[in-house]
Formats: sequence, C-alpha cells, structure tokens
Amino acid sequence: MTTETTTIRSVQWQGDHILLLDQQKLPHITEYIKLTSIEDVWDCIHTLKVRGAPAIGITAAFGLALWAQSFQQKDNFLGFFYELENKRSYLESSRPTAVNLSWALGRLVSGFSKAATVEQGQSLLLDEALAIAKEDEDVCRSIGEHAAGLFQEGDSVLTHCNAGGIATSRYGTALAPFYILKEKGIDLKVFATETRPVLQGARLTAWELMQAGIDVTLITDNMAAHTIAEKSISAIIVGADRIAANGDTANKIGTRGLAILAKAFNIPFYVASPRSTIDLAIETGGDIPIEERSPKEVSHLNGVEVAAKGVKIYNPAFDVTPNEYITAIITEKGILKGNYREQLISIK
Amino acid sequence: MTTETTTIRSVQWQGDHILLLDQQKLPHITEYIKLTSIEDVWDCIHTLKVRGAPAIGITAAFGLALWAQSFQQKDNFLGFFYELENKRSYLESSRPTAVNLSWALGRLVSGFSKAATVEQGQSLLLDEALAIAKEDEDVCRSIGEHAAGLFQEGDSVLTHCNAGGIATSRYGTALAPFYILKEKGIDLKVFATETRPVLQGARLTAWELMQAGIDVTLITDNMAAHTIAEKSISAIIVGADRIAANGDTANKIGTRGLAILAKAFNIPFYVASPRSTIDLAIETGGDIPIEERSPKEVSHLNGVEVAAKGVKIYNPAFDVTPNEYITAIITEKGILKGNYREQLISIK
Repeated sequence: MTTETTTIRSVQWQGDHILLLDQQKLPHITEYIKLTSIEDVWDCIHTLKVRGAPAIGITAAFGLALWAQSFQQKDNFLGFFYELENKRSYLESSRPTAVNLSWALGRLVSGFSKAATVEQGQSLLLDEALAIAKEDEDVCRSIGEHAAGLFQEGDSVLTHCNAGGIATSRYGTALAPFYILKEKGIDLKVFATETRPVLQGARLTAWELMQAGIDVTLITDNMAAHTIAEKSISAIIVGADRIAANGDTANKIGTRGLAILAKAFNIPFYVASPRSTIDLAIETGGDIPIEERSPKEVSHLNGVEVAAKGVKIYNPAFDVTPNEYITAIITEKGILKGNYREQLISIK
Repeated sequence: MTTETTTIRSVQWQGDHILLLDQQKLPHITEYIKLTSIEDVWDCIHTLKVRGAPAIGITAAFGLALWAQSFQQKDNFLGFFYELENKRSYLESSRPTAVNLSWALGRLVSGFSKAATVEQGQSLLLDEALAIAKEDEDVCRSIGEHAAGLFQEGDSVLTHCNAGGIATSRYGTALAPFYILKEKGIDLKVFATETRPVLQGARLTAWELMQAGIDVTLITDNMAAHTIAEKSISAIIVGADRIAANGDTANKIGTRGLAILAKAFNIPFYVASPRSTIDLAIETGGDIPIEERSPKEVSHLNGVEVAAKGVKIYNPAFDVTPNEYITAIITEKGILKGNYREQLISIK
C-alpha cells in the first residue's frame, strides 16, 4: 500500500509569490503567509517566521527570484545586475549568522553570470532557487530512504528537538524515515522529547508528525530513560548541527545524554544529517564552539518567570556526542559506520 | 569557622499558632502564614501550601495539638477524646494518600492513651507533635552529617528535584550535606536540574539553597551530561520516594537517567533518605507502582498550552533506579554500600 502523506512544506514557490508557514505561530495556529515582495521575505526571515538552516536558505533564494521578477526595465541589464547585488546584501542582513542564507544567495548570483539579458537573468535566478529547494528535498528524501531501512513496522523510536520537514524543503533529516515509511504504509511509534529550554520537540516535532498522521507521544527530556525501558524504544535518531572529521557530533543540548542512555540500554543511536553538515576542517568535537544563550530561556516561559529570581543559570544550546556513542551516521550518500574519519572523507 | 546558616523552616510551632511557609507562592513570594485553627491547617495541607511527606506530617500533628489547646471543657475528658478522633479523621481527609500524614496523626492518638485528664491530653499531644518535628530534624541532620563526609571544599555536585529543607522539619535529605558543610564554612557548588514537568528544582531547590547562601546554578534536565563534563561535577545526590529491599530506588522522574550518566562519567551516585523510606515488603524496584499524572503538567505551563494541541503525552511521575547504579545509600544510621539487601535489613 502506498499512501500520500500530508507532509508540511514550510516554503513553497507559487509563481508570483512565496507561501511561507509561520513557524512562530506553531503549534497553535497553522498560518501560511503570502510573501509578495522582497521586503516581506526579509521581514519573515528576520522575525524567525521561518527557521531551520535549509528552509531559511530556500526562502531567501525565492526572495531574490521574486524581486528579479518584479524588475520592470527589461533593457537595463546593468541596472538589474547592480540592483541584484544590493538585494543580495539586503537579504543577507536579515540573519547575518545563517550560513545557508548567504550560501543560497551566493549560488543564485553565481548562476546569474550566464545571463545576457534581464529576462535570462530572471529565469536563471528562479531556476536556481527552485533547484536549491529541489536538491534539499532530494537530499532529505535520500536520507529518509537510507534511514527507513533501519526500522520495522511497529518499532518505537525516540527523537530529540526538531530535525523535521519544516526546517528543510521537505521530510527533514531525523524525521525523514518516519515520513518515508508512512508513505509505504509502515507505521512506527515516535516518542519526542519536549527539548527544553525552547521546546522544539513539544511545539514543532509533535505538531508536524501529527499533521502527517504519524503516531507521536510527547515526553519531558528527563523521562527518556524510563520511557526507553517501559515503552521498549528500539532506537534513538537525531539530527546534527555540525559533524567533526572524527564523527563527533554537535547537536541540540540533551543529545549527548540520550546517546549515553542508548548505549546503557543497548539500543542503536543514529545521527541523520546531510553531507553539508560535515566539517572536515574540525578534527574532533572538542574544537566545536558551544553557544551559550540567554538565561531567560531557562528562567522564563511565555514571559513568566518560573525559576527562583536571580538564580545563576547555565544555558549551553548544544552539546557534543563523542563518536563512540554513535551507531551510524545517515547521509544522502548512505549509512556510515565504523571508522568515521575514513567514511566521512569518502563521501565529501 | 562555624557559621549559622539561615536554613528555611517550613513549619514552626509558635505556642498558640503554627507558622507555615507558603510553598505555593515560592519562589517569587516568601510568605509565612499564621495558622490559628485546625481549619486553617486542613486548608493549607489540602491546597498544597505545604508539601514534602515529613513536612505534611509535622503540620498535621501540630494542627491536632492546636485544636486540643483550644478545647475549653476541661472536665469533659470523654468528649475531648471523642472529638479528638473526629479531628484526626478530619485532618486525614486533607490529603488522603499522604502516608506521613496518617502516620503522624496515629502516633499522636496512640500517645494520648496515657492521658487521664483534658490537660494531660493537651500536653501529651503537643509533646508528641514537637517530638515528631524534632526527630525529623535529627534524622535529616544525621543524614547530612554522614553525607557531608563524601564531599570536599570546592566540589561541584549535581542534585535533582527538591529533597530539601522545606520538605522536612529542617535540612532535607539530599540537600542536608550542603547545609551541614555550609555551617562548617565549607563551600560546595551545587547544580540543580529544573526537574520538569513541575519544576521543583527551578522553583524550590534553587530558592532554598540561595536563601542559605549556597552557590547554586540551575540547568534544564537535558543539560546534565554536558554539565557533568564541562563543569567537572564530582558526584550526584538525590532523595528517594521508596527504596525496595534490594536497594532499587523510586524517586522523581529523571533520577534513573542521571544515575546512568554518573556511571558513564565514572562519578558516584548517592541516594540520601531516612530509614522510613525503606520498604522491605517490596522485593525489587519492579514491584513499585509508578504514578502517571495529568498530561496537562507537560502540555501547559502557568495555564498556557505550550505543546501541540491534542498530542499524546506520557507523564510518569517517578522512575526506578536499579541498585547497581547506586554507589551508596545514606541514612540517619550511616552510609550503606555493597549488598543492599543485607545492609537495609540491618538498619531497619
């Protein structure tokens, strides 16, 4: 049996506008915003209505193509090119630290070099933006297909944070196998940690899996050990923010603890991530800088202070899971196991 | 150097009234309520203004003594005795499942059997209530003194939930060594997990340690592994809700995961608990029933829904840590290690 799942798409090109899922309003309101100008796009990226590195890059690329379409002086190619550079810088300023954003815009501008007319330029920019979105979808689908082979009907699998479809063009990374299996009529049970302090699991993962009709149960982060034991969890799968040359993996805070639990309970611990996340310039996880974020993320919830006033707070946003705790790294090129240093080089 | 710490006392007998710390208002408001009638006492227990099994038992005992003091018909001993039984049942109904509550009230009524007059009865009831409070303080102090020997100046120690002074007469159990060491001028660094879903760590442990001038840092539950590694945590210490004959220990959800982390990082994992928590009738942790609580504790915070609407939620309130993960159990009779089955029988 083959079922078409209702995978949520966070960014969609609609011919003369962009349809963007407002992730700020999730999970309580599912609202798609119609972006008709580059200013709309800048604003939505800046105000975090779109999140997830691939989704941000795709939105920015469509934003530049949208501006190009609106350029009226068809005989002013030089003016078009000059303004293109301005608009690229403008969009880059919406979230200066987002690597995928400047990467996607750079790719559009590079592809534009083949153009000789405004019309050609408009068409090349749009084609490149669509290609970026398509490639991201293909990468995620491929990760999902490789990962799907690791699970069987009825398995209960634990995931952390949101490495999901709404952070990418479609499917996501860690959540991709669940969508692929659902398409094939194979049902898993997914357990999602709420992922304090920002609650991406409770707000986003729970929501997007529910939209696709996937059986998802929410737990608090500290329920993982008890849940693995009581609910017969057969594997843990997470995404990655950066993978070092030796396989050490930086991901959302809490990942390292889950990997240690997986080993203690003798179940596999999988990292699902595109090749673009592998950073061979970084030797080991010890060299990955860990961002510390505002104490308010921990002390306040919905603007209300929940912790004792003035208490010291430690709020690292990520942790690094040592390679020996990772059973396999699943990329669009296949499943890596064993000597990660050799395996990661071979697919880069 | 000896320092008198400002340990918070959650219940205090004041001659003609009870002074009760309103734990519902913590951590933002530190308010002591003056209880002048048995109805005040019933209401404060029922509305959870006092929490922690020992603190509830002590409050109820003082409540019965308070009612006895107000009994005016000095020549009506039979009427006094009859009404005592009524008031005992009345107080028991304030939180029917709290074992310490009925235990403390039962102890008062048993002691009363030596009375021949209303005045003697009044005096015996108050003496017994004061004895219960004093014994609890002695037990906690003794646990703290035994546990204090496990730590050294400058150690960083992780704790979970609130096994603190405000749950008992004074000192608490897992937090007792920190108070004892502070009295001796020995400073530790304490890391407290916020303890989702009810946030006892963020609200209560952080607050009470701060009141005593103890260096405390709050983290979310999923930061434990990263914090153990990055902040050189030298030990983990927790309380217990019930200890089986083989040493398996039921405690707040999240405890089991921390015990597994302690083993992975090769640091000791301590359980601090009075003998009254040991239940030799229960063979192993597998026989301890685990309470599941309302999904709303996970989905809502301060009345606001934070999780995806309608998502399935699993909310076990406790978990069981297998005995092999417990380095030592610290009771008022000393530190137990090795064969818990023999050791636990020897001190009961």
